[in-house]
Amino acid sequence: MKLATLDDDSRDGRLVVVSNDLTRCTDARRIAPTLQAALDDWSRLRPELAALARALESGSVPIERFHERNALSPLPRAYEFLDGSAYINHVELVRKARGAQMPPSFHTDPLMYQGTASGFLPPRGAIASHSDWGTDFEGEIAVITDDVPMGTDAETARDLVALVILLNDISLRSLIQPELTKGFGFVQSKPASACSPVAVTPDALIGWAEGKLTGILEVDLNGVPFGRVRSGDDMTFDFGELIAHAAKTRHLVAGTIIGSGTVSNKLDDGPMTTVGEGGAGYSCIAELRMIETIAEGTAYTPWLGEDDVVRMDMKDEQGHSIFGAIEQTVVET
Amino acid sequence: MKLATLDDDSRDGRLVVVSNDLTRCTDARRIAPTLQAALDDWSRLRPELAALARALESGSVPIERFHERNALSPLPRAYEFLDGSAYINHVELVRKARGAQMPPSFHTDPLMYQGTASGFLPPRGAIASHSDWGTDFEGEIAVITDDVPMGTDAETARDLVALVILLNDISLRSLIQPELTKGFGFVQSKPASACSPVAVTPDALIGWAEGKLTGILEVDLNGVPFGRVRSGDDMTFDFGELIAHAAKTRHLVAGTIIGSGTVSNKLDDGPMTTVGEGGAGYSCIAELRMIETIAEGTAYTPWLGEDDVVRMDMKDEQGHSIFGAIEQTVVET
Repeated sequence: MKLATLDDDSRDGRLVVVSNDLTRCTDARRIAPTLQAALDDWSRLRPELAALARALESGSVPIERFHERNALSPLPRAYEFLDGSAYINHVELVRKARGAQMPPSFHTDPLMYQGTASGFLPPRGAIASHSDWGTDFEGEIAVITDDVPMGTDAETARDLVALVILLNDISLRSLIQPELTKGFGFVQSKPASACSPVAVTPDALIGWAEGKLTGILEVDLNGVPFGRVRSGDDMTFDFGELIAHAAKTRHLVAGTIIGSGTVSNKLDDGPMTTVGEGGAGYSCIAELRMIETIAEGTAYTPWLGEDDVVRMDMKDEQGHSIFGAIEQTVVET
Repeated sequence: MKLATLDDDSRDGRLVVVSNDLTRCTDARRIAPTLQAALDDWSRLRPELAALARALESGSVPIERFHERNALSPLPRAYEFLDGSAYINHVELVRKARGAQMPPSFHTDPLMYQGTASGFLPPRGAIASHSDWGTDFEGEIAVITDDVPMGTDAETARDLVALVILLNDISLRSLIQPELTKGFGFVQSKPASACSPVAVTPDALIGWAEGKLTGILEVDLNGVPFGRVRSGDDMTFDFGELIAHAAKTRHLVAGTIIGSGTVSNKLDDGPMTTVGEGGAGYSCIAELRMIETIAEGTAYTPWLGEDDVVRMDMKDEQGHSIFGAIEQTVVET
């Protein structure tokens, strides 16, 4: 089942069920007015939404054209966003570029930060940037959970994944170091993120198994392939483990978004190469800059600037978009 | 105007307007079903709620008894919680106890962390603890904002304070150091907080001026006065400055909660003393332990344990509770 939230000028949008091929949708408000409302009563409403999805595929309900550009992020406002760093290669690179070792505990204890959940940008929403901020994208997989009781273990948590999305975790690199130095986390350096137009239940994802999504996260910068990273590889912590980590000392409310962190492949310990060079490339500019720094002592690829366009997508085996595309243009403020 | 959210077995409770003396309330659902719904359309609904408040005081609307024990936190689920450390004395003590200097920038650049907003505990809700966690309370003042556009300055932000509350920022001290060492903020060490039963508009607070609340935050531990700290003193950053700091790189959605951090008085640079010794005492156990550490080389006051009761309240000049009391009992898990 695929769900989306269409912009109707309200704060939370209106819920629609989307066809598997993302061309059509049908209004779901008679079941739940918003995605949050559906998640608030997920075990009861999910079967009703699934029935509506089947009716949509068979053409037995009113159909609208689905346009990704009219979609908001599936949860325009969410109550909780916790973003992990499950692809340890990304963390190792960050450290290596600044000459630091990675603590061994990072292989067993996930890195995670509390992110802002109050205003996810639309999938086609502009990225507000400032020339001093060092604006970057981070291509991620994320899940939206059902209610997760405090202390839930990783195996149980895997079954509490309600929906899967793509997520662009916008990062203000020049603000990260001063913020982290203060010791209290990212705050100003991690502004609002954007999600894919469509959220998909795990049972509708061929690549979903054991809390991981296997697929190629396609990231393009200004129309040029920047990343073709395999999301099923090199993920040290699956979503069950990330959710369990998040729920150690708190209940996670239905609609909690858990991010994977930047999707990153290690590629046999060799140097990572760009897509142009035949490699998997990167899911953020920072990684390319780190590779440049490690190889050449300095980074030269610039951060995002006015009119840059970043696009994220993932396709199925037939080449069709699974979640719809995030496509955002940078606007200097 | 005073507002509260009563428990009706729904996730967000039902909105009531409460009398100034906290003894009576009246249903506000014909104006807005929940406090979040009221905040979503605050400029339009606030006058309607204020009219209902006047009608409540004059007895011209149906009246219910108001029992603090039936209240949830005013926003049982909120979209954003950013907690500052506006009382620099608290930060200085933390550093001093571990032999570290405080960077001068801390006097001009607020410390702030992104907290969990998804599930505020009821004002009388149990604190789930574990003997290994080092559970502590932190008495704070907090505000609930209207929509705050990105880049709003401090002066403008002061006028966007919709409501004021008390807040118990529960802190798991034994988890803080390992979490902060990882570099990504508190996450597991800052679980759900609790708020006062009643939220009050600034115009109804005699002690409110220039983004600060003047009053004595009464904190009792097991019925014994623990803190009588003056919230109007020693607040380095007012709420306008904290909101502006939070909004530097993001829009703050209506219903955002901004915390002051632990209320703490400096008292002429002298050693802080307990309430029993005639001093202002402390708004968290950690401060007392830091004083013990600085004075005697070791801390001996224990963290919270099974059946401990922490109570927070603030009274007006007539001795009446302004916000109702937070009163929470610790339950070991």
